[in-house]
Amino acid sequence: MIMAKVIGNVWATRKEESLNGLKFLVVKPLDYGRESDAPTFIAADVVGAGVGETVLVTKGSSARKVLDKDEAPIDAAIIGIIDMVEVEKAYLV
Amino acid sequence: MIMAKVIGNVWATRKEESLNGLKFLVVKPLDYGRESDAPTFIAADVVGAGVGETVLVTKGSSARKVLDKDEAPIDAAIIGIIDMVEVEKAYLV
Amino acid sequence: MIMAKVIGNVWATRKEESLNGLKFLVVKPLDYGRESDAPTFIAADVVGAGVGETVLVTKGSSARKVLDKDEAPIDAAIIGIIDMVEVEKAYLV
Amino acid sequence: MIMAKVIGNVWATRKEESLNGLKFLVVKPLDYGRESDAPTFIAADVVGAGVGETVLVTKGSSARKVLDKDEAPIDAAIIGIIDMVEVEKAYLV
Amino acid sequence: MIMAKVIGNVWATRKEESLNGLKFLVVKPLDYGRESDAPTFIAADVVGAGVGETVLVTKGSSARKVLDKDEAPIDAAIIGIIDMVEVEKAYLV
Repeated sequence: MIMAKVIGNVWATRKEESLNGLKFLVVKPLDYGRESDAPTFIAADVVGAGVGETVLVTKGSSARKVLDKDEAPIDAAIIGIIDMVEVEKAYLV
Repeated sequence: MIMAKVIGNVWATRKEESLNGLKFLVVKPLDYGRESDAPTFIAADVVGAGVGETVLVTKGSSARKVLDKDEAPIDAAIIGIIDMVEVEKAYLV
Repeated sequence: MIMAKVIGNVWATRKEESLNGLKFLVVKPLDYGRESDAPTFIAADVVGAGVGETVLVTKGSSARKVLDKDEAPIDAAIIGIIDMVEVEKAYLV
Repeated sequence: MIMAKVIGNVWATRKEESLNGLKFLVVKPLDYGRESDAPTFIAADVVGAGVGETVLVTKGSSARKVLDKDEAPIDAAIIGIIDMVEVEKAYLV
Repeated sequence: MIMAKVIGNVWATRKEESLNGLKFLVVKPLDYGRESDAPTFIAADVVGAGVGETVLVTKGSSARKVLDKDEAPIDAAIIGIIDMVEVEKAYLV
């Protein structure tokens, strides 16, 4: 999983039918000890995350596991709101 | 998922049988706050996207979920046409 | 999927049993509007591609879908020979 | 799999239900012969790893195989504590 | 798949139970026409590869297909020992 900051919303009226009702958010990956250069991407949200929150994002086939039927074509999902991170900075040098 | 711009079409007469009838488009990944350096790639289209449109693209095994039988060997699919994106620019600095 | 140029052949006598009979080709990813810096890799071929041809390559679990039984441990497969690509260059700047 | 150093802990109270009871650690990828520039990420832990330990991390759908029911949406898991690595340095030049 | 050079061994006594008996090797990705900058990683070995050999490596869920029961959490496996590679150098410029 990666940590990411929710930075926006995406709307798509015309879309694959199984996506109806899903909320899509723009997220920016976060890294420790330096600024992340990973590009922003879009994740489906099932935990009610909002813009500005730091979240836990899963990718690939595991993202589908947040759905009841595992059948919508999503490849990224927000699976938690991060409360706190504790990092041993000595290991980052 | 990623946002991408549809920039072209691909034709392949000789191909794996299960791909017959599928439309393949060339897409260019988009990023926020800077130009994307991600390479162009090819996605199957099931929503009727056209050149110049901004689309939502899913990758990996999830791409197969747009097909009726989950059996064609595709690893990227356009799953929506993006109408609007709203991004909190403060989070991009 | 990505577009790639077939640039060579690979031989491996000692290999996982389920791979017997499969042909492995060295491919070089192609990008539009600039030279690709993606590394070469090896793809299984089921469409009869040859060195010098431009092909459509699928990766990940979808590559196994080209096989009859979905059980050989391949993660990349050539699924089509590309005849023509038409790209709107205005979108590449 | 990759080798990584465990560098911290992550807490998320509000999360996908199936994640309850799982421990999430921040890991930093390690490389041989040079410093890794791969970003830190979050892995579920099932072997009892602690901060400072060098671990073996698996990614993608394989991460779910460490769970009893294969249903939690995780895409990275610590699957071993590394005791020793022996590398032939001649091959790294 | 990628070509890689086997450069070392990894030992992990404390590990996920289903990994018992598997051999883990450190591999360095190889590229054609230039030196690879891809990081080293760890692959399970089922073909009896040794340090110094050039091997064919599969990644992702396909790696699990080398196992009898498809249940161990591995995401990379050596599936062949490469005897010979023939590349048309003209295509590498």
